Amino acid sequence: MTQDTPSRIKVGIVGGTGYTGVELLRLLSQHPRVDLHAITSRKESGLPVADMFPNLRGHVGLCFQTPEEAALDQCDVVFFATPHGVAMEQTPALLKHDVRVIDLAADFRLQDVDTFQKWYKLPHSCPAVLRDAVYGLPELDRERIRKARVVGNPGCYPTTVLLGLAPVLQAAQPLVDVAHIIADSKSGLSGAGRKTQVGSLFCEASDNFAAYGVAGHRHHPEITECLNRIAGVPVSVTFVPHLVPMIRGMFSTLYLRILPDAMQTDFQALYEKRYAGEPFVDVMPAGSLPQTRSVRASNMLRIAVHRPGDGDTLVVLVVQDNLVKGAAGQAVQNMNLMFGFPETTGLQQVAVLP
Amino acid sequence: MTQDTPSRIKVGIVGGTGYTGVELLRLLSQHPRVDLHAITSRKESGLPVADMFPNLRGHVGLCFQTPEEAALDQCDVVFFATPHGVAMEQTPALLKHDVRVIDLAADFRLQDVDTFQKWYKLPHSCPAVLRDAVYGLPELDRERIRKARVVGNPGCYPTTVLLGLAPVLQAAQPLVDVAHIIADSKSGLSGAGRKTQVGSLFCEASDNFAAYGVAGHRHHPEITECLNRIAGVPVSVTFVPHLVPMIRGMFSTLYLRILPDAMQTDFQALYEKRYAGEPFVDVMPAGSLPQTRSVRASNMLRIAVHRPGDGDTLVVLVVQDNLVKGAAGQAVQNMNLMFGFPETTGLQQVAVLP
Amino acid sequence: MTQDTPSRIKVGIVGGTGYTGVELLRLLSQHPRVDLHAITSRKESGLPVADMFPNLRGHVGLCFQTPEEAALDQCDVVFFATPHGVAMEQTPALLKHDVRVIDLAADFRLQDVDTFQKWYKLPHSCPAVLRDAVYGLPELDRERIRKARVVGNPGCYPTTVLLGLAPVLQAAQPLVDVAHIIADSKSGLSGAGRKTQVGSLFCEASDNFAAYGVAGHRHHPEITECLNRIAGVPVSVTFVPHLVPMIRGMFSTLYLRILPDAMQTDFQALYEKRYAGEPFVDVMPAGSLPQTRSVRASNMLRIAVHRPGDGDTLVVLVVQDNLVKGAAGQAVQNMNLMFGFPETTGLQQVAVLP
Amino acid sequence: MTQDTPSRIKVGIVGGTGYTGVELLRLLSQHPRVDLHAITSRKESGLPVADMFPNLRGHVGLCFQTPEEAALDQCDVVFFATPHGVAMEQTPALLKHDVRVIDLAADFRLQDVDTFQKWYKLPHSCPAVLRDAVYGLPELDRERIRKARVVGNPGCYPTTVLLGLAPVLQAAQPLVDVAHIIADSKSGLSGAGRKTQVGSLFCEASDNFAAYGVAGHRHHPEITECLNRIAGVPVSVTFVPHLVPMIRGMFSTLYLRILPDAMQTDFQALYEKRYAGEPFVDVMPAGSLPQTRSVRASNMLRIAVHRPGDGDTLVVLVVQDNLVKGAAGQAVQNMNLMFGFPETTGLQQVAVLP
Repeated sequence: MTQDTPSRIKVGIVGGTGYTGVELLRLLSQHPRVDLHAITSRKESGLPVADMFPNLRGHVGLCFQTPEEAALDQCDVVFFATPHGVAMEQTPALLKHDVRVIDLAADFRLQDVDTFQKWYKLPHSCPAVLRDAVYGLPELDRERIRKARVVGNPGCYPTTVLLGLAPVLQAAQPLVDVAHIIADSKSGLSGAGRKTQVGSLFCEASDNFAAYGVAGHRHHPEITECLNRIAGVPVSVTFVPHLVPMIRGMFSTLYLRILPDAMQTDFQALYEKRYAGEPFVDVMPAGSLPQTRSVRASNMLRIAVHRPGDGDTLVVLVVQDNLVKGAAGQAVQNMNLMFGFPETTGLQQVAVLP
Repeated sequence: MTQDTPSRIKVGIVGGTGYTGVELLRLLSQHPRVDLHAITSRKESGLPVADMFPNLRGHVGLCFQTPEEAALDQCDVVFFATPHGVAMEQTPALLKHDVRVIDLAADFRLQDVDTFQKWYKLPHSCPAVLRDAVYGLPELDRERIRKARVVGNPGCYPTTVLLGLAPVLQAAQPLVDVAHIIADSKSGLSGAGRKTQVGSLFCEASDNFAAYGVAGHRHHPEITECLNRIAGVPVSVTFVPHLVPMIRGMFSTLYLRILPDAMQTDFQALYEKRYAGEPFVDVMPAGSLPQTRSVRASNMLRIAVHRPGDGDTLVVLVVQDNLVKGAAGQAVQNMNLMFGFPETTGLQQVAVLP
Repeated sequence: MTQDTPSRIKVGIVGGTGYTGVELLRLLSQHPRVDLHAITSRKESGLPVADMFPNLRGHVGLCFQTPEEAALDQCDVVFFATPHGVAMEQTPALLKHDVRVIDLAADFRLQDVDTFQKWYKLPHSCPAVLRDAVYGLPELDRERIRKARVVGNPGCYPTTVLLGLAPVLQAAQPLVDVAHIIADSKSGLSGAGRKTQVGSLFCEASDNFAAYGVAGHRHHPEITECLNRIAGVPVSVTFVPHLVPMIRGMFSTLYLRILPDAMQTDFQALYEKRYAGEPFVDVMPAGSLPQTRSVRASNMLRIAVHRPGDGDTLVVLVVQDNLVKGAAGQAVQNMNLMFGFPETTGLQQVAVLP
Repeated sequence: MTQDTPSRIKVGIVGGTGYTGVELLRLLSQHPRVDLHAITSRKESGLPVADMFPNLRGHVGLCFQTPEEAALDQCDVVFFATPHGVAMEQTPALLKHDVRVIDLAADFRLQDVDTFQKWYKLPHSCPAVLRDAVYGLPELDRERIRKARVVGNPGCYPTTVLLGLAPVLQAAQPLVDVAHIIADSKSGLSGAGRKTQVGSLFCEASDNFAAYGVAGHRHHPEITECLNRIAGVPVSVTFVPHLVPMIRGMFSTLYLRILPDAMQTDFQALYEKRYAGEPFVDVMPAGSLPQTRSVRASNMLRIAVHRPGDGDTLVVLVVQDNLVKGAAGQAVQNMNLMFGFPETTGLQQVAVLP
């Protein structure tokens, strides 16, 4: 522990009534360096958190509070598990009190304000803060996250697509046709959140499989902006998300066309080298077939690299728990970096199987 | 009814202890032109079929019989719902008695005997019969099926991929890059059959999503052989199947790169025209997002055509019930054609939703 | 067909946007004696029904209409698949036009108006109509249903509990302690309907099991009123409903204490005799273990009678599809009776398994 | 830590290829006082455990070993996660080396050897060891477990039924009719284990609900023997287990008839007092409706006490994770007691929700 590393920090959560909220609480209530200070929900003010989320009974004694009661400015860090647009309203005031911010919504993900406004139908209220914010994917930008005051926690789909493509796109020479990448992604229902909508009902979603957002999904520009940045050239991805009748889990099947000059590449080695030493990225042995349940309720993301028939198509399979590495777990990983804790603190749960 | 059309036919089933077997029984027991004559299972001989499949109580009074008892040579048609290799052993004898055969396994699907032997690890015992057999996809080969004595009923994945690609590959001029087609397919668990294997257990397959067969799947050569035939040029498909935690349902997401000269094509119109009048192929309105449950327990296959961002990637979404249009229903559709019944006889069930 | 039996009837549905609505449409669109005349939904007016329920594409061409457009007074019968309270408002006017009414909500189930008002928090607007209405459980009251102008279609839980208890309670002499009957019932999620509520979300209900309504459930007084009627003495049932993570299916486990004088009773024979000839009640062989999937999407209800250790506790197991025999199928069965059609018309679908 | 309490212990597992095995590994690999020494499986010898159970990748480096290689006699404690009959064969030899034994099968549960032999169809090979063995339900017998050399870890159903009934049956005066207790229990599929059998297939168990073992279940005599012991009088329970389409979770609904003299009892207070201070039994507030997911992957068991209509029937609702408090977690709890560790060590995971 360096002299700047606090032994414990005070943590606040804004808007903890959704699935990323309860998952943050599950992780933070077990984190050895965290004191849960407050959790806000104007609507549920006064309700014990454990009454809404019975898994927390005996572990979290907090009640939801109004923002006024919560005194978030006394926290070291505040997580926003809110709808898009809330974090950018409240972040400037928190920064004045030296409170750091990790937003699990989209307010600080896209650097291009016009793109943000087009996809989220909201004007951005603090573009200057946005410019200083860091996109919180540790495996791509660890050092900047350590120093960040504001982190935009990545979307769940982008986490799988970006980590699945980075080794290829960051390689020294061009390896694949960057104009024609396919990302066929599949998500469990918890990605749709806890809001009541017909499509999320058990009787609509169970025993069913469907694509959605084929004409456009908000995670698409996020993927593209970040890929352009890491590749240094314009990248084009066709992105089709699908809904799987399961609670947690995300699976992305990525298809890349290998360039003629790159046919000799050892992609397995490329991936293993790129992620050597990463605590939360597991490049599986050649030939592996990852399953979403192998990461259920854990912060691990697993990758397998295939090249069917030794042809010119590279198939990359990526799995994560969308609520952990795809949301709350990654947010805690970012928090650990920002406060100088070992990156894996509080995040070494073994996945739950079966 | 022409003079050659019988009013009723006698039907036998070999090996009805799996899911295609029980689904055949569900459909045939309600078919107004069918008399169920016999169903064989050496292992279950003597057991009332309805004791194994309680949904059939009150509808099917047959017991399983040994092949010796069953007198299949008195049938008009025999369905094989058996492991690969059984139908080819028994078909020549049945043909001598003028019994027609519909095989739901792979024995009469692949015309190339070497390919068959490579993928199924079996020598083909009657290549002459195979040469006369017809691949039973009515929408591609209706007239030949009408006259067939032996039909190889298509695999479930191939049905979705072939019907999803046919309009493009059969077009007058080249429309897409046929060397780089992606078929990302997802199937419910019933596609794996009723055999006991760890991976098919509820606790392994539920709340999980995984790819399999990335290095090679038996339906891949079937897809390729048929695509080559209908396209008239060599076609290359990257095919990745996945397992979805649901009982029935199959979803294929097909990605095609549109050729520069074909960018003006109206693909929606192309598909609608190709399948106009087809009773079991529903080209949905532009922008539609098909769901597998919309065809659950019905013989309908639905297609939606998308072109995200009006770019050069065509995305075709195809859904079916893998046990109906992907297996037993298609077999009954073939039977209807072979005996001159209206093609939709006994197949107009409304899908079960929710 | 008697001279009073019409060859075809015109049918209207009020409020077809829920699961009983779509299930009625599935059944009625295949019914050989029914012309679907209109379906109303003020909110969805103008929307093709098949756009909301994609399983109906190609089978139901109707659009939702406002009540004003629908001309329900020209129907022979109108089904109400509406929230409680709607049918009683509209029924008197329909009766004036000689339209018969089948209500799938609770307006015409309870004969005791005070009980109705206590549990449904609504004054009953037409008690005179209620007095003439018949509780639509054909196996208990077939002859009165034939002549009914208004039928109150039973609740899903009561159908299983009443048919599971009737043979014992209607026996010539007392067989069980009627003051201490236990009904432990389990229902699939579709029983909760298509309305958006947190508890019905996939992520709340999947991979979970819970009791609800332990302190009181609206089907409890319905069960009790009907049991008192058929037993002729006051009956007391402890009724605990539970939610099962499946779409369709209901299972009631009934526990009765056998009276000392009745220990010699052959309960299996009692049940078989009581339901001999019933087309939709299947008393299974002794020792059977019914499964809900054995009746999925069918109108069959199955019963198995057990007496563990030949002791003084009788255990009766009852399964049905809550949307069919527990709702829409039973309503069609009632319609068949009311119009002199064979009772099984349009209701002989084989259950879907797997 | 007393002078007898070791700082760390060496642990072996016999037969870790089932679900209780992998769950033991999940818990023990995170336990701060445990060194995993060996895991045996003759059949899988040489296979890395993490290849069979991919959630353990990065957490458990062991390979399965033959019993000969494993040197289990060097362990402090050995868990048996084997079929019934294995532990009793190997335990005497281990005891000679001062190795303590926790058996998750039935070999050391039933004290009555005849009953054991009747239900398990095996002669008991070491009745003397059995006599010294302790039934490992800490809330009932904590002090004896501390000193035990051999613990028979309770069955999953018995854990819920016994803890749900103990407060009433251990009360100072008679409160309920002990001759007519109903236990209607429901279990997720993992209770059936990882062996391949048709009934455990996804396509058989999903979207289905059924009772089983109505004529007799092995957990019934275990429940009865233990109830007789704690009540001091003969107790008779009708026990009906059911299968729920979910992976983990167990729910028992218990029905008791309150004796006339006991109608004034405050049962809520009775339960709260009985389990005050218990770390893994949560008596929920009056009116609560426990859900199995509230304990998913945790060692907590929750109880709610109801008395519908203030009548003479007491309804007790009990939930647990059958693999944790119902198996592996309880085994670790017993281990903690046997070695003087704080009872909650390694067992304070928050349940995973959603």
